[in-house]
Amino acid sequence: MFVPARAGRGVRLRAGERFRVVDLEGMQAGDLFAFNASDPAEYASAEHTRVYAKTPEEARNCRLFPRVGGYFVTNRREPILYFEEDHSPGQHDMLVAACDAKRYELLGYPGHDSCVENLARVMAEFGFEDVEIPQPINLFANFPVHEDGTFTQELLQTKPGDYVTLRAEMDAIVVLSACPHDVLPVYGPMGPTSMAIEVLTDA
Amino acid sequence: MFVPARAGRGVRLRAGERFRVVDLEGMQAGDLFAFNASDPAEYASAEHTRVYAKTPEEARNCRLFPRVGGYFVTNRREPILYFEEDHSPGQHDMLVAACDAKRYELLGYPGHDSCVENLARVMAEFGFEDVEIPQPINLFANFPVHEDGTFTQELLQTKPGDYVTLRAEMDAIVVLSACPHDVLPVYGPMGPTSMAIEVLTDA
Repeated sequence: MFVPARAGRGVRLRAGERFRVVDLEGMQAGDLFAFNASDPAEYASAEHTRVYAKTPEEARNCRLFPRVGGYFVTNRREPILYFEEDHSPGQHDMLVAACDAKRYELLGYPGHDSCVENLARVMAEFGFEDVEIPQPINLFANFPVHEDGTFTQELLQTKPGDYVTLRAEMDAIVVLSACPHDVLPVYGPMGPTSMAIEVLTDA
Repeated sequence: MFVPARAGRGVRLRAGERFRVVDLEGMQAGDLFAFNASDPAEYASAEHTRVYAKTPEEARNCRLFPRVGGYFVTNRREPILYFEEDHSPGQHDMLVAACDAKRYELLGYPGHDSCVENLARVMAEFGFEDVEIPQPINLFANFPVHEDGTFTQELLQTKPGDYVTLRAEMDAIVVLSACPHDVLPVYGPMGPTSMAIEVLTDA
């Protein structure tokens, strides 16, 4: 499914279905959201994913960012997505809220398109109005963390066609917003570009 | 207001009122939550606080953890708390979800007390049932971030009587849970201990 620059699209997946998120033109971040298909009050949650552990030994060591072989879990600590493949430089943010109208207003750009508006529009098409806005998985966003406790928003490193492959761990609605951010030059000289969600059909 | 070990307490504050969160016995983390007093769907949000900025120049540089002179903002990007003073070693986490029954069940401790239960109980006393569970500000939690993108849950460094002073920036309900976590030994040999919320009366 083509996701035009600055727009959002969603797909309904059954548990076990795999999909790819593709950065078609390179240097574009996608805000990915995942909801339990039967109850959107349950959704992929960054703060639960960072500390997901099944033993006290695992619990001590946590990860800021997702990587292949890990689960994204919901606000009820249930796996919702599994990170299967990463054909990208491997930078994906889980620290930053989705952009919204207020974000752009504060930065001097009132009336700007936003990932939150894209998400709300897509979820309404699925019949869910006024969903809670989760923190997204910012695929391909290059926001490195520094030793002094700061992190910075840097130029993305993806090339055209880079992708990640994820697997739904429960029946889920997955929404991708091709982020319309163009205030900081992190998406390179082209600015916001298009992406794709490809649902894989197993042989 | 005394906050017994493992328990939660809340206060209603007017905009401009200041309060302290005190670690009475040392080495104890407090999960702090703040809600708009007239609409608890608006709450202090870690992922919005980390990237709060009013100019594109500020927007590039973000902070993982709060510090004196900064605002905590809501999921609508409105300031709700201001961080005025820090009489502690200065470690406060904003990465980790509040503990809940499922967290302890996964770690092998079903039926354990949790900050989420404490929060729900306090908010119900204020007349708000089934509030969204925000990511807390984990005051005094010592979860350092490492260059490889991991962070670890380490022994707390607070001494008895260490405190922070915060100011409400809107009419707010503030809830503190003296975290009952005792699976990892991060709260030292005493385990979970008591805390206090002191609302300051200006001279």
